[in-house]
Amino acid sequence: MAPILLNCMGNDHEYIKQQVQVKNPYLDTMEEDILYHFSLSTKTHNLPEMFGDIKFVCVGGSANRMKAFAQFIHQELKLPGNPEEIRDICEGTDRYCMYKVGPVLSISHGMGVPSISIMLHELIKLLHHAQCRDVVLFRLGTSGGVGLAPGTVVITDKAVDYSFRPQFEQVVLGKVITRSTELDEGVANELLQCSSELQNFPSVIGNTMCTHDFYEGQGRLDGALCSFSQEEKLEYLRKAYEAGVRNIEMESTVFAAMCRVCGLKAAVICVTLLNRFEGDQITSPHDVLVEYQQRPQVLVSHFIKKRLGHIV
Amino acid sequence: MAPILLNCMGNDHEYIKQQVQVKNPYLDTMEEDILYHFSLSTKTHNLPEMFGDIKFVCVGGSANRMKAFAQFIHQELKLPGNPEEIRDICEGTDRYCMYKVGPVLSISHGMGVPSISIMLHELIKLLHHAQCRDVVLFRLGTSGGVGLAPGTVVITDKAVDYSFRPQFEQVVLGKVITRSTELDEGVANELLQCSSELQNFPSVIGNTMCTHDFYEGQGRLDGALCSFSQEEKLEYLRKAYEAGVRNIEMESTVFAAMCRVCGLKAAVICVTLLNRFEGDQITSPHDVLVEYQQRPQVLVSHFIKKRLGHIV
Repeated sequence: MAPILLNCMGNDHEYIKQQVQVKNPYLDTMEEDILYHFSLSTKTHNLPEMFGDIKFVCVGGSANRMKAFAQFIHQELKLPGNPEEIRDICEGTDRYCMYKVGPVLSISHGMGVPSISIMLHELIKLLHHAQCRDVVLFRLGTSGGVGLAPGTVVITDKAVDYSFRPQFEQVVLGKVITRSTELDEGVANELLQCSSELQNFPSVIGNTMCTHDFYEGQGRLDGALCSFSQEEKLEYLRKAYEAGVRNIEMESTVFAAMCRVCGLKAAVICVTLLNRFEGDQITSPHDVLVEYQQRPQVLVSHFIKKRLGHIV
Repeated sequence: MAPILLNCMGNDHEYIKQQVQVKNPYLDTMEEDILYHFSLSTKTHNLPEMFGDIKFVCVGGSANRMKAFAQFIHQELKLPGNPEEIRDICEGTDRYCMYKVGPVLSISHGMGVPSISIMLHELIKLLHHAQCRDVVLFRLGTSGGVGLAPGTVVITDKAVDYSFRPQFEQVVLGKVITRSTELDEGVANELLQCSSELQNFPSVIGNTMCTHDFYEGQGRLDGALCSFSQEEKLEYLRKAYEAGVRNIEMESTVFAAMCRVCGLKAAVICVTLLNRFEGDQITSPHDVLVEYQQRPQVLVSHFIKKRLGHIV
């Protein structure tokens, strides 16, 4: 087993020993912080001991997929112990699942901006309480492709909203504020470089549109509600394509915005399950979809292994 | 076992034999409809046979809680078979879970508007394909109370947004449209009547505010991000109270809006886990919270038993 050394973390990287920044003046005055949706608390759990060595946090919608990723990265990092016996740290709740594998944390976040936003608040607090440093976050997801062959991996340049703007609207006490959704360019380029080192690995850097639903907001003709024509749908997708959008999913804007505010390097890596110019329903066979869904995992695993010095 | 007869469905009820209306002209022209997030399809499953007798659909955020509800209603309706052996109809996916117990369907929807919206599109299509009639939908949830003692059950009058307006904003092909979030007054009053027939069952009818996050949008001081004071928080909650808001959750507006558009009678029943005027963290002991979470289930079970003629 290779020693866990942090490669690529020399003086030229500004984030060396960068601490996770919560942006809440009240937090450190609280006697106890209950991370309710993780079923963890600063009083009942020793968070620095449990999580202090975390360097990579990988999040994704599906609980099963994030468990599979944890088992996969366990094997890839050649860590001791049986990956089948990996334990869900959030077993006290069914809201999210969480697995720790060496310096890697794998967490599920459900579907949509509100669901991932709750998880991110509690994750960022957890990383803060645990005094983690130099953490990189990855969202590994599935998405609809815009003008790409199914199975292509999109590394997000900018996360954009339904009007293709790189911003996230957050309501605070009844008022709407806007946050930037820019992601870390260095990490995205490093991921693209990693993808070029893998065999038969179609990947691009492009903008990712984040919507608040799967049907009407993404221009699908197959929902319970549909008030537009096929031609109007295609026109919207063409406009998205012209704005640099290469895939559509449902979590990237808030993920980018919250990571940015808290000084966390972050990247979004989603595989496309279909080309939306060609249809709305996901019709590929189960085994093909399973293989597609492994691609973001393979890419991020390669990135982590390089950073840890397992691959020179 | 009492026969399954639909009480309270006389001539004075307009919805007698009312079919579930999808609002999509393309749906019936599709050769196959894959309900992707349920792992069901019109080609691989006989939906009328599987679901044609459904009269009550109960949805809630947590998969474990909706399984527990299915087992509870199985006992309450004195149906044959072992409630422990109940099978997840959506076992091919971990996005949602679904249990059928006689005329009752119990489904989880995750957290937040986007997550429940995907489920509702596919549920409404399922009820349509299965040719269901006279269906009533209930959302059974947890919430933060506004000026109520923890444990109070709120039956929603109007679902309102962050500005206390009874509307839901939906993006369709990049344009924002507004839908009404009015719920069925008759079902709400029938539920309040049911609650008065139960012992020690604190319940009110009030407005429910639906937000898109748990922390900043609900005025919590304990998130990873917080830019306002305790006084500003309390002022917002006071304004909400004055607008008739008695609890805050994260799914009611889209639930009300979609059910209304599709001609489905619907109600939202959420228990309050804390009084937000007194704090932000959920600190009650686990067993107290478990008992609170059963209250919406007990109320809806009573309603269903009355409708089925098990209780006269």
